[in-house]
Amino acid sequence: MAGLWLASGAAGAAEKIRTLDEILAAAPATDWRPLDADNTLYMELPDGRVVIELAPAYAPRHVANIKALVREGYFDGLAMLRAQDNYVVQWGDPDGKREIKTAQRNLPAEFTREWSKTFPFTKLDSVDGYAPEVGFAYEFPAGRDRKKKRTWLAHCYGMVGAGRGNEADSGDGTQLYAVIGHAPRNLDQNITLVGRVIEGMELLSVLPRSGGKLGFYRTAEQRTLIKSVRIAAEAPVDQRSSLKILRTDTASFAEIVDIRRTRHEEWFKYPVGYIGLCNVPIIVEENK
Amino acid sequence: MAGLWLASGAAGAAEKIRTLDEILAAAPATDWRPLDADNTLYMELPDGRVVIELAPAYAPRHVANIKALVREGYFDGLAMLRAQDNYVVQWGDPDGKREIKTAQRNLPAEFTREWSKTFPFTKLDSVDGYAPEVGFAYEFPAGRDRKKKRTWLAHCYGMVGAGRGNEADSGDGTQLYAVIGHAPRNLDQNITLVGRVIEGMELLSVLPRSGGKLGFYRTAEQRTLIKSVRIAAEAPVDQRSSLKILRTDTASFAEIVDIRRTRHEEWFKYPVGYIGLCNVPIIVEENK
Repeated sequence: MAGLWLASGAAGAAEKIRTLDEILAAAPATDWRPLDADNTLYMELPDGRVVIELAPAYAPRHVANIKALVREGYFDGLAMLRAQDNYVVQWGDPDGKREIKTAQRNLPAEFTREWSKTFPFTKLDSVDGYAPEVGFAYEFPAGRDRKKKRTWLAHCYGMVGAGRGNEADSGDGTQLYAVIGHAPRNLDQNITLVGRVIEGMELLSVLPRSGGKLGFYRTAEQRTLIKSVRIAAEAPVDQRSSLKILRTDTASFAEIVDIRRTRHEEWFKYPVGYIGLCNVPIIVEENK
Repeated sequence: MAGLWLASGAAGAAEKIRTLDEILAAAPATDWRPLDADNTLYMELPDGRVVIELAPAYAPRHVANIKALVREGYFDGLAMLRAQDNYVVQWGDPDGKREIKTAQRNLPAEFTREWSKTFPFTKLDSVDGYAPEVGFAYEFPAGRDRKKKRTWLAHCYGMVGAGRGNEADSGDGTQLYAVIGHAPRNLDQNITLVGRVIEGMELLSVLPRSGGKLGFYRTAEQRTLIKSVRIAAEAPVDQRSSLKILRTDTASFAEIVDIRRTRHEEWFKYPVGYIGLCNVPIIVEENK
């Protein structure tokens, strides 16, 4: 936190501080990856598409089950159930009557997973009250405890999880939620996160707040329809979103973290010198 | 952070852990205060009222100017200018032509203020990367630096600030913003916060995202009308909102922080043991 007006990290103190646009324009193609089409969902709402990338490295059982549900058409015609301001939106079956055909009921909890040196983790230099260490794995925000050899996904804005009841193993992926407010990091290690909204977050964040308890809608008229959910790799090629994501284990990403930690723009009078995990931008662009 | 399953603070390890509802039901009347009617604004939107409490202790010049603008009717008939997802909504004059009659142009920056022991500050036990200490003053989330004898308001969800240009003293209160996403704490000490949305936040958080640069709306049709803004104390008595706020310098509030820091509910399998400044609920209720 010293030397707040000096560049830190990749750019070097004597070099020009690059802007975000300059960093992205100069990033080699290898710094980007396409979304993992086998683990990407397209959720079609009346106003457009929500693209969700799943995190099989963290929640393999849940991801497999959600994909099984999607292939069954489980979510097609279901609805948004809940929009609680500054917290989450949640979707699933409002009537609780839809049949599950091939998918599992009640999966084991995947709140955390084993961490070892073979598991990628790009540490963020950031003090964090909710985790001994924070950083990024597979372009997802995550926590890590080296002593316990555990890692887990973090409840930042746009993260998607699987609702559950009081029992740890009572989630099954039939009800999913996305964070639409200040990160409820107290949920970390308490519920299974399954991925992140990559595009279309603004379709979820503006859903009407019902004012009901926990934000649950009371009537069918209040609920937004889910037209369909599909796995990207199984959608017709001409209907696929073409998105790329900046890898979080690259020098380009590290430089972005640096310029967002210590602010050099003229507008900033106090250069900050710190960045929280959920304030780090994960960059997504159209593949052109 | 030790003894995560034991109660800490007011409740005592051997006593029953009270729920939020139990704490609030038992809180003495003196733990609550009414909103400060002289420093509370009613912003009437087509879908309802947004109640904003101003913070004259932190931004006296800005608050005085905003009240002068309100009394002029400056905001009446203006509009929401911008809704940037996971960041802010901002309102003001889309045409930049409205005359300022009695209010000042270009106020001195009020990014921080002097702190001394006579200034109330209820410290939160919470490691925070953006400030040496965090806590609450006058029911607002705030940072403090004892060495520099400074304190400042923190950009948590629902906080309201005064937009400015590149010059520190270029804000005047004619354009105001509210935080609608994960706390952009990097703005702390960089811009003047003037208060907080107390009620009606859900009217701002669902405003349509334009997709334009920084979320600015491009056309008049996209913008939500501000029907009027009034000072609560100057509104007809039968049109006033009757709200009370739980004082943050009370044992009741400390107990709420404790039960939100360490989770005792059956649902929580990992009791957390930490709470961030912007995750602490500031309690507002109807006066009955």
